[in-house]
Amino acid sequence: MRPSSRAPDEMRAITIETDYTKHAEGSCLIGFGDTKVLCTASVEDRVPPWMRNKGSGWVTGEYSMLPRATHTRGNREAARGKQSGRTQEIQRLIGRSLRAVVDMDKLGERQITLDCDVIQADGGTRTASISGAWVALRLAVNGLLADRKLSEDPITGKVAAVSCGIHRGTPVLDLDYDEDSAADADANFVLIEGGQIAEVQATAEGATYDEEGLLRLLRLAQMGCGDIFRAQDEATR
Amino acid sequence: MRPSSRAPDEMRAITIETDYTKHAEGSCLIGFGDTKVLCTASVEDRVPPWMRNKGSGWVTGEYSMLPRATHTRGNREAARGKQSGRTQEIQRLIGRSLRAVVDMDKLGERQITLDCDVIQADGGTRTASISGAWVALRLAVNGLLADRKLSEDPITGKVAAVSCGIHRGTPVLDLDYDEDSAADADANFVLIEGGQIAEVQATAEGATYDEEGLLRLLRLAQMGCGDIFRAQDEATR
Amino acid sequence: MRPSSRAPDEMRAITIETDYTKHAEGSCLIGFGDTKVLCTASVEDRVPPWMRNKGSGWVTGEYSMLPRATHTRGNREAARGKQSGRTQEIQRLIGRSLRAVVDMDKLGERQITLDCDVIQADGGTRTASISGAWVALRLAVNGLLADRKLSEDPITGKVAAVSCGIHRGTPVLDLDYDEDSAADADANFVLIEGGQIAEVQATAEGATYDEEGLLRLLRLAQMGCGDIFRAQDEATR
Amino acid sequence: MRPSSRAPDEMRAITIETDYTKHAEGSCLIGFGDTKVLCTASVEDRVPPWMRNKGSGWVTGEYSMLPRATHTRGNREAARGKQSGRTQEIQRLIGRSLRAVVDMDKLGERQITLDCDVIQADGGTRTASISGAWVALRLAVNGLLADRKLSEDPITGKVAAVSCGIHRGTPVLDLDYDEDSAADADANFVLIEGGQIAEVQATAEGATYDEEGLLRLLRLAQMGCGDIFRAQDEATR
Amino acid sequence: MRPSSRAPDEMRAITIETDYTKHAEGSCLIGFGDTKVLCTASVEDRVPPWMRNKGSGWVTGEYSMLPRATHTRGNREAARGKQSGRTQEIQRLIGRSLRAVVDMDKLGERQITLDCDVIQADGGTRTASISGAWVALRLAVNGLLADRKLSEDPITGKVAAVSCGIHRGTPVLDLDYDEDSAADADANFVLIEGGQIAEVQATAEGATYDEEGLLRLLRLAQMGCGDIFRAQDEATR
Amino acid sequence: MRPSSRAPDEMRAITIETDYTKHAEGSCLIGFGDTKVLCTASVEDRVPPWMRNKGSGWVTGEYSMLPRATHTRGNREAARGKQSGRTQEIQRLIGRSLRAVVDMDKLGERQITLDCDVIQADGGTRTASISGAWVALRLAVNGLLADRKLSEDPITGKVAAVSCGIHRGTPVLDLDYDEDSAADADANFVLIEGGQIAEVQATAEGATYDEEGLLRLLRLAQMGCGDIFRAQDEATR
Repeated sequence: MRPSSRAPDEMRAITIETDYTKHAEGSCLIGFGDTKVLCTASVEDRVPPWMRNKGSGWVTGEYSMLPRATHTRGNREAARGKQSGRTQEIQRLIGRSLRAVVDMDKLGERQITLDCDVIQADGGTRTASISGAWVALRLAVNGLLADRKLSEDPITGKVAAVSCGIHRGTPVLDLDYDEDSAADADANFVLIEGGQIAEVQATAEGATYDEEGLLRLLRLAQMGCGDIFRAQDEATR
Repeated sequence: MRPSSRAPDEMRAITIETDYTKHAEGSCLIGFGDTKVLCTASVEDRVPPWMRNKGSGWVTGEYSMLPRATHTRGNREAARGKQSGRTQEIQRLIGRSLRAVVDMDKLGERQITLDCDVIQADGGTRTASISGAWVALRLAVNGLLADRKLSEDPITGKVAAVSCGIHRGTPVLDLDYDEDSAADADANFVLIEGGQIAEVQATAEGATYDEEGLLRLLRLAQMGCGDIFRAQDEATR
Repeated sequence: MRPSSRAPDEMRAITIETDYTKHAEGSCLIGFGDTKVLCTASVEDRVPPWMRNKGSGWVTGEYSMLPRATHTRGNREAARGKQSGRTQEIQRLIGRSLRAVVDMDKLGERQITLDCDVIQADGGTRTASISGAWVALRLAVNGLLADRKLSEDPITGKVAAVSCGIHRGTPVLDLDYDEDSAADADANFVLIEGGQIAEVQATAEGATYDEEGLLRLLRLAQMGCGDIFRAQDEATR
Repeated sequence: MRPSSRAPDEMRAITIETDYTKHAEGSCLIGFGDTKVLCTASVEDRVPPWMRNKGSGWVTGEYSMLPRATHTRGNREAARGKQSGRTQEIQRLIGRSLRAVVDMDKLGERQITLDCDVIQADGGTRTASISGAWVALRLAVNGLLADRKLSEDPITGKVAAVSCGIHRGTPVLDLDYDEDSAADADANFVLIEGGQIAEVQATAEGATYDEEGLLRLLRLAQMGCGDIFRAQDEATR
Repeated sequence: MRPSSRAPDEMRAITIETDYTKHAEGSCLIGFGDTKVLCTASVEDRVPPWMRNKGSGWVTGEYSMLPRATHTRGNREAARGKQSGRTQEIQRLIGRSLRAVVDMDKLGERQITLDCDVIQADGGTRTASISGAWVALRLAVNGLLADRKLSEDPITGKVAAVSCGIHRGTPVLDLDYDEDSAADADANFVLIEGGQIAEVQATAEGATYDEEGLLRLLRLAQMGCGDIFRAQDEATR
Repeated sequence: MRPSSRAPDEMRAITIETDYTKHAEGSCLIGFGDTKVLCTASVEDRVPPWMRNKGSGWVTGEYSMLPRATHTRGNREAARGKQSGRTQEIQRLIGRSLRAVVDMDKLGERQITLDCDVIQADGGTRTASISGAWVALRLAVNGLLADRKLSEDPITGKVAAVSCGIHRGTPVLDLDYDEDSAADADANFVLIEGGQIAEVQATAEGATYDEEGLLRLLRLAQMGCGDIFRAQDEATR
């Protein structure tokens, strides 16, 4: 039995509240159960120095946890004066994942920054961030299309992410904090609607796993991402 | 006429949503109009090194803006590797203001950290932070009292803060972003229920002001804080 | 009785030694009793990036304490790798205060930096810094006028600052270190000759204060600044 | 055809020169073709603060590139004042991978740090680092066993890593720099001798991939790691 | 002819104003012509962690230039967030030089920090710093002896420093800024009264020098330090 | 007797392995006995900002120790976030020493960076670095001449460095770690083939030294550098 009483292949409730803040070109508060992440998309008419004058755009991600998003308070990275390795790893992953579904030439010479700030954490913050960032991006691009700043849609598909793991010997979908702390293996899958994979990161924790285990986790991820794709669809319709 | 069509002595709508996050010992989302700040109170059974073994406690504040809380995206302080002078000034003010209404001996050897994270900014973020931090503190201390970790209430009164300024020659209460950008003088008042002053910070911007001007701003602040005290009262009843 | 035996409305001896260093365009060593601050004005024919090509100038301040300016040695901020919140707060205040008496259009596209380095500290270092910085600025601008780099005087008035506080129930002027450590309230006033206020920062320490208390402190500050204005006048005649 | 003329499932020459430096408890210079990494194992009789007095040990990794290991000179991270996100990601991966084959209770309260410094880079520096770090670790633990500081071998198996990718539509093993720059997908596999997986990191670059692609890359990795396990075996016999 | 019209073996005027600040245990303002350095000695009853419980003491130096000590304003190291290589080199030299004349066992478990802050620079700031630091140290130790905190004098001799260089082919003593900028070789000598050498740092700038040149510079330094030893003697009598 | 059984004027074995890495324009692994330093020369067609558009070039040095080059592991400077004073001192010395034998006008507007990374340390790492950096520089410049990017040789001579010291009363050449730890004086000489001196840094450690001692150390350094010049000659022939 999972601590949360969920079935092994059962996602937590997915909630997406769009236009959560008024200044960002696109925004949502995404929830995977008690995990809540504010995702905003900011459009700027400039690209990083190494991309200038090439006519194509850039999509990047940033990530942070509010200090008391967690069970015990963590120190602010701004106060410590540097971002942790974990933070940098996650924000690099967010950027890569979203770039996998954007045609940079169609975006033109502009940058979209996806800020993912975790308001409340209960496992799966990076996968909720990626899934919510897509919604913020979609809304921001919709605005650019409506304002005729873009003539063609640069978004080539939907991207979503979910974590899976082996908990007490059973592969389970969408780990919450209690499960994550006790899992033998922890895998994050970033999938693209239609069957393609953007990224797999599967790490043995207490115990290693084998090829069969990897495949079973991938199948669960495909089910979970199906649910997320439907929620993204409803939120941005 | 104020850009917002408010009367000179009219506060924006004050909203306080308590228990906004589940991990913090006390929390609220406070709104002064479109300014929204998440305030959390975190209780820890330790004090800073220089206070150890004295039997008394400590209250401190931290402050940050989410990068897209503002009209245009700001850089993350964690990415830049240091907090701005403005951020440090504000978090020192938050700490001082809340300490003005706490009896540190009654609190005992524990620290309460008040994190104020601005979700959306429209002027007055520091005053909303102080006013909301009091609510988070009150809720956290209520919990300590209910759990019998404290036998006496260490909170000695209510504290609230509001900004006032001189806008096109007229003293006005609770500046929003449009007014703040154009004000000749900008003053933040931290008041304690019952008529006492915890802090005044009044700065000439475009034009200087005189003693009479200072007093008129103080009177407006007393009115505004009266409204905030009532809202705090309802939220924590 | 004050520890220093001064009357409540009595300033410490104000000393201003001009042209204290030979390289700066303007400089003085200002003393408020045993508090000694070296103030230099450096003129540069460039402005910060965000001000370029607008034809107007900029005035900014920097502040530091020598490590053994104080009773016990403090760590060097350069060795620690960052400036404290207190230092940043003070240097922002110095810049704002001096900008209140400069017409930036008349100054033209140049920047004047006011460096205030505390040689010896005995309370009131920020107020002595502001008062001395005005002298350094005046001398530097006199030089620009004499060299015909400026045709019109951009300085619109005198600015001075002084601290006041409530010490054992009595409002007193110009706190020294012994009084400052024991004061119930600590207020810094930045005043402009002629009755205008540039900045008030009044903080409750041990006890809060009321409107009447604030006014009594302001009256003392007006007396103290009168003395400083006279000393500035003599020093720059 | 691969730029290197290798068959799709052909590793570059694996070279391992043990005892490359005299101070480290274990060391080797590992080569995957022109990629050369110096791996050292340093044993210390202390563990990180959060692990003290638990009787068990810790294994951690650090990684760096010499500035001219690459085609064009990179800036030194020590001079820039911080480690890049890439560096931190890699050193976290090295530590996790080696910990997967160490029984921390048998290691006792000591820490082994695996430093991987890239002398020359030609693709696959992180996988060569992990593979060489195991050799340095094995040699250091052999020394502890010989000196009777350990009575039981804490190493539970061999770990090796290799990169695979999809190059012009063909899955290929052990990408060199030319292939890596042009690959559509880039995957790093950390495998344990006997068929278990410690970590999979598979990233779509130019194009995404599907489940079948992932499996084909995994099969190649199993072949490559087989070669590395044999080379590790010979080097430490 | 030297720009200053001095004879090749002529020092600038040496001035030493003792007890320049009131808080430090020892202090002086030393001048080598227009170069002015404030040197303070701070005594603390603790030593660095790696020296604890050995019964012997430590002497260390710190160095800084005020931003406008120089012809054009330099950035504050505290604002830039790190000390330059030059600053670190000089403060290491100050510490080593003073330690050469202190018996650490006689000093007992205490640390003396010599802060050298350059108020005005005109060449030779590091040598003036060392020479003035000795005076501050002597005064601080005199105080410890007078207070019977020390029973034996830990100072074993006098140390002084001076720069020499080859200017237009002629070896000259005590370079000022104009000479220093144009010198072919620049040498700093730290000498101990009685003929011993604590440190030589002789650097070719425009042109290299030979053994004979080195010896001629050393002879000049011996003459210059003779003058400084006499000035130190008068100042501390 | 020296710990190493060498005669007082006997160098350790000098080994120079050229073209140690494939990407750098010039490289060698230099050994002074067990001290091994990888020196690379990187040529870039740009100079630092303050040198632009003057038609002349720049030569600079960087230095680092691998964490386990030494008896006990040192922390990585990149992880600590800053370079130590010792590192900065050494890399400034490397740059100055090499610039002493390069005609910057003949080099043209390009920069050569000499990276010296200590693979294994046993005393004399900075002198081995300078001596090896010359070899890397020579090889890189040979390449520029062969490619006709340079028409005239900008290298004006050979530069080499060696440490000498007073060990148990005897002046000895080329200190290894055991001698260095116990030496009374420690001197580094940077000499130019033909009898000129580029730099002397002679520091008293346990005991001071006199003029006669300095000269005896210089004579030893001349002998040692003679050996190094021959080795440089053979390596670059």
